[in-house]
Amino acid sequence: MKSLHELFVHLLQDIYFAEQQIEKSLPELAQSAKSENLRLALESHLKETKGQIERLDEIFGLMQLSPETEECEAIEGLIDEAQEVINATEEQPVRDAGIIASAQAVEHYEIARYGTLAAWADQLGLSAVSVLLNQTLEEEKKADATLNSLALLQVNQKAA
Amino acid sequence: MKSLHELFVHLLQDIYFAEQQIEKSLPELAQSAKSENLRLALESHLKETKGQIERLDEIFGLMQLSPETEECEAIEGLIDEAQEVINATEEQPVRDAGIIASAQAVEHYEIARYGTLAAWADQLGLSAVSVLLNQTLEEEKKADATLNSLALLQVNQKAA
Repeated sequence: MKSLHELFVHLLQDIYFAEQQIEKSLPELAQSAKSENLRLALESHLKETKGQIERLDEIFGLMQLSPETEECEAIEGLIDEAQEVINATEEQPVRDAGIIASAQAVEHYEIARYGTLAAWADQLGLSAVSVLLNQTLEEEKKADATLNSLALLQVNQKAA
Repeated sequence: MKSLHELFVHLLQDIYFAEQQIEKSLPELAQSAKSENLRLALESHLKETKGQIERLDEIFGLMQLSPETEECEAIEGLIDEAQEVINATEEQPVRDAGIIASAQAVEHYEIARYGTLAAWADQLGLSAVSVLLNQTLEEEKKADATLNSLALLQVNQKAA
């Protein structure tokens, strides 16, 4: 990769793969949640994730590229860790604290990636692409903040 | 794991492993940087990382536990991705943009983990532990902000 444009496309394919893995893993995460509010938050984020995948399709379209994925080892590791926490905690209030921790680690991965992609899109003069990336970035930040509130106001206390 | 305390120790061992992997990988990341300022920022974060590992040792001590690691697949994936970017970009300005993206993804992983650990420490009444975790959390946020500024003010423009 010799240009920022090539690196941008590489990272776009990486997050496209990551979003698809997140879409696959969220239903189990939601079903494993004991707290009703946590389950609803994860289900709502699943809908949002589907919209984010469509937004990535739109970005590939704007760039006249066919949507392709690049295997992303980071998201695989993050999802494996989430799975381990579910398996290791059984159906107890503490599991919800673990689910939130796992989901927030995933959110932060996405915040880092979309932040980088939006900055690179600006630098490359891809303003329509940047607008779409920033929309997703704001959704990820809000999703992280929602999980944070759930942990601090409800879940951690029950888990302790 | 049936208690928040057990889950806390598990996550502490996970980040202890992660910090050691970061300590190992930062020298190569710094050496691969073309920008002098980026190299200096990564070297400075290496020193900070060593301090963060000592802080984790102190936390294990406060909790009367021997420091142990838990393999963390997420950090392995993040570091593998950083390595791939270095290998794929050769010695060009665009590599610096890729190094910053990789380092920011690692920072965000740490921000998520230390944020969770600090909240759990508060919930568990481990106030001295929480103070130490929050010190590291603030360092990670600052490291991320420094990388962000470097990207926006210097590196991205040269890479484009």
